[in-house]
Amino acid sequence: MGRTPEPSADRQVETHAPAAFAFLDRLVQQASLLGAEHGAQAVLADELNRLGFDLEWISIDPGICNEPDAGVPTVSYEGRRVLVGRRGDWSSTGRYRSLLINGHLDVVPVGSSEQWSAEPFRPTYTPDGRLIGRGAGDMKAGFAMVTLALDALGVTCPQSHEWPLCVVGAIEEECTGNGTLASIRAQVIADGVLLPEPTALAISLSGIGVLWIDVVAKGSSRHAGESDGVNALDALGPIIRGLERLSAELNRDAQPAGADRRETYRVNVGLLRAGDWHSNVPGEARMGIRFGFPSNWTLEESENCIREQISAIAAADAWLCRHPPVVSLAGLRATGYTMSEQDEFVGTFAQAHRETHGASPVMTGFDSTTDARFYRNRLDLPTLCYGPTAHGIHAPDEAVELRSIVDGARTLTRAIPAWIQ
Amino acid sequence: MGRTPEPSADRQVETHAPAAFAFLDRLVQQASLLGAEHGAQAVLADELNRLGFDLEWISIDPGICNEPDAGVPTVSYEGRRVLVGRRGDWSSTGRYRSLLINGHLDVVPVGSSEQWSAEPFRPTYTPDGRLIGRGAGDMKAGFAMVTLALDALGVTCPQSHEWPLCVVGAIEEECTGNGTLASIRAQVIADGVLLPEPTALAISLSGIGVLWIDVVAKGSSRHAGESDGVNALDALGPIIRGLERLSAELNRDAQPAGADRRETYRVNVGLLRAGDWHSNVPGEARMGIRFGFPSNWTLEESENCIREQISAIAAADAWLCRHPPVVSLAGLRATGYTMSEQDEFVGTFAQAHRETHGASPVMTGFDSTTDARFYRNRLDLPTLCYGPTAHGIHAPDEAVELRSIVDGARTLTRAIPAWIQ
Repeated sequence: MGRTPEPSADRQVETHAPAAFAFLDRLVQQASLLGAEHGAQAVLADELNRLGFDLEWISIDPGICNEPDAGVPTVSYEGRRVLVGRRGDWSSTGRYRSLLINGHLDVVPVGSSEQWSAEPFRPTYTPDGRLIGRGAGDMKAGFAMVTLALDALGVTCPQSHEWPLCVVGAIEEECTGNGTLASIRAQVIADGVLLPEPTALAISLSGIGVLWIDVVAKGSSRHAGESDGVNALDALGPIIRGLERLSAELNRDAQPAGADRRETYRVNVGLLRAGDWHSNVPGEARMGIRFGFPSNWTLEESENCIREQISAIAAADAWLCRHPPVVSLAGLRATGYTMSEQDEFVGTFAQAHRETHGASPVMTGFDSTTDARFYRNRLDLPTLCYGPTAHGIHAPDEAVELRSIVDGARTLTRAIPAWIQ
Repeated sequence: MGRTPEPSADRQVETHAPAAFAFLDRLVQQASLLGAEHGAQAVLADELNRLGFDLEWISIDPGICNEPDAGVPTVSYEGRRVLVGRRGDWSSTGRYRSLLINGHLDVVPVGSSEQWSAEPFRPTYTPDGRLIGRGAGDMKAGFAMVTLALDALGVTCPQSHEWPLCVVGAIEEECTGNGTLASIRAQVIADGVLLPEPTALAISLSGIGVLWIDVVAKGSSRHAGESDGVNALDALGPIIRGLERLSAELNRDAQPAGADRRETYRVNVGLLRAGDWHSNVPGEARMGIRFGFPSNWTLEESENCIREQISAIAAADAWLCRHPPVVSLAGLRATGYTMSEQDEFVGTFAQAHRETHGASPVMTGFDSTTDARFYRNRLDLPTLCYGPTAHGIHAPDEAVELRSIVDGARTLTRAIPAWIQ
């Protein structure tokens, strides 16, 4: 067994694929929505245990929200922890470079379940080789890709059990990032960080800034038959339109995000609640907005920008100037991040991909965020996202192409030894 | 004791007012929201019992929704009944004309409780003589006005206990009318019908048509960072605007609703729900609309009008034409109703008001509906609304002027004997 285990590893990846798919099936069965992540973490814990990892559960201190880059939690952290698995020789003798693999087990809500062709948490397989299920693509398949590669390497490179590997099973990636942040505060770090997010086997090196904002507008509630009510929904209208104008302006001057693309900042009214009775004029309307910002802005700049824009909208509106909307942050407070394409870590993965697939990987970035930002912005660690091909992320019938898990694992059987050894 | 007990009755009304206010206080303490009406009915039952009424509880057959003028129920009728109290001589000897007093004990939701200056179901008194509480005005105070008049008449006209009186304590007036409808199907009727709704001591003789419509629009859910999502909220926009245009058209040609006023038809988005995650594009948005129609339209005309308008909006919209919104009726299916000012029943109440207050009552109508429609449209019974002065109906800090309860009761001590005897 030498430094070129590739052909044999490819065969081992194929051999172990059914087991990896079964692991993914078990993961998808766990409805690991916000606050209910433990079941999926337990499935991952079993798998890591089988692979010889030592497990650790890291608590999330409620005081984490005082960290300058923490998200704003909306659910208690009591009994909710981050799973960390560690394997191999972590002594600082310089023999190996360590690798941290960070994935999240939390999934976003299913939305309208009748828009799904299958039960969101009952894995369903399509004739063209996809697994449908909430979280299948984002990002449970990434864990299967990693464990599949480790199983293959376990056969082709028995010494791989000595390699300093760490797997983080995070929570709240989708809403705060505080799970990964807690693990970093607990010194769970390494020489390089892979996030097997669904990139369709591209290498993603950047993310934009993202803020979640809650806006509550007041109306003047009345019987619907009366003349002098003010519908709080109408009060929200100018705010939505104003934020859309702001977003359009930001996009006009968007940051470059690589050789052939620019960042795109989207504003999304992700939830809206108003009223509770057909014949009552709603006296209050609440909306939850996701706002994308340039990656070179600080959190302070982003927050100020949003607040100033809403204040300006309110000042110019006859109703809102007397009934100013209440703006608060809830959830993501994410700054943008970038990673150089020239970095050796990136080069290692690009080369492994090339060797495996016969072509250079696409180098890209997200017009959203990932937990990679903490490793980049806090620690300047080499960090990239590389993972399977997903469809309908955050949408009904979210799915992953099972073949892409195998293809990604084949890359990893080359990239991991190349980085570590 | 002769046919003119007025001055003495006025004194008795004043004497019994504190007890009537205490009864109202007990009624308001009962949070008789949709599905939870029984507590308030029990308070009324005790009061009717004290006044010598025989009580009956009328079940609501789930099949009631097949009646052509029934509302569309949203809550099971199991264990929910209509209270009927009956007193006096109901033999058909022609000695007396009977009177039915119909009120509803259900109240609408409180909306944003932080917009209240007091707990909505903890009666609170203001220095200027108002009682604040959800349902205080609409229409629990009407019951207090009636029992106050009956207490006074019990002293000044002992024979009043022989008068054929019936009190209906209805439920679901605010959303279907099916409580009153069930009582009518059980033959709870009389020669004249008073609804002590809050009219500020005006006589209200008409109501417009009102439909409740639920509209569900589809979007195309995505991760908020992706380009090809369609926000279901944006899909609702053209529908809301189209219904507002329709309403404006109807108002241009509004029906006369009496000598000096025309009907007004308002469209109200009373509730809206979309999405559940800031970073997901909502794939579905639901809104509940209250739509006012001309009082001379049939239910079929109204329903067709709404459905055709929404179909036309959808046909003209690039997204909606391929993803037609789902329209359903839930709740009120109310046709308009009118009552002639020249009717003897109306004249009796007008004369009693004049004698009591020294001026003719305002004759008006509602730009909304009441359960009066069933007595008018099904049975052609003389029916009117006359009751206390309320503020903020369906709004935060709903209140009733306590003095108006006394003033209204004074009118009733003249109107009731004048009608019955």
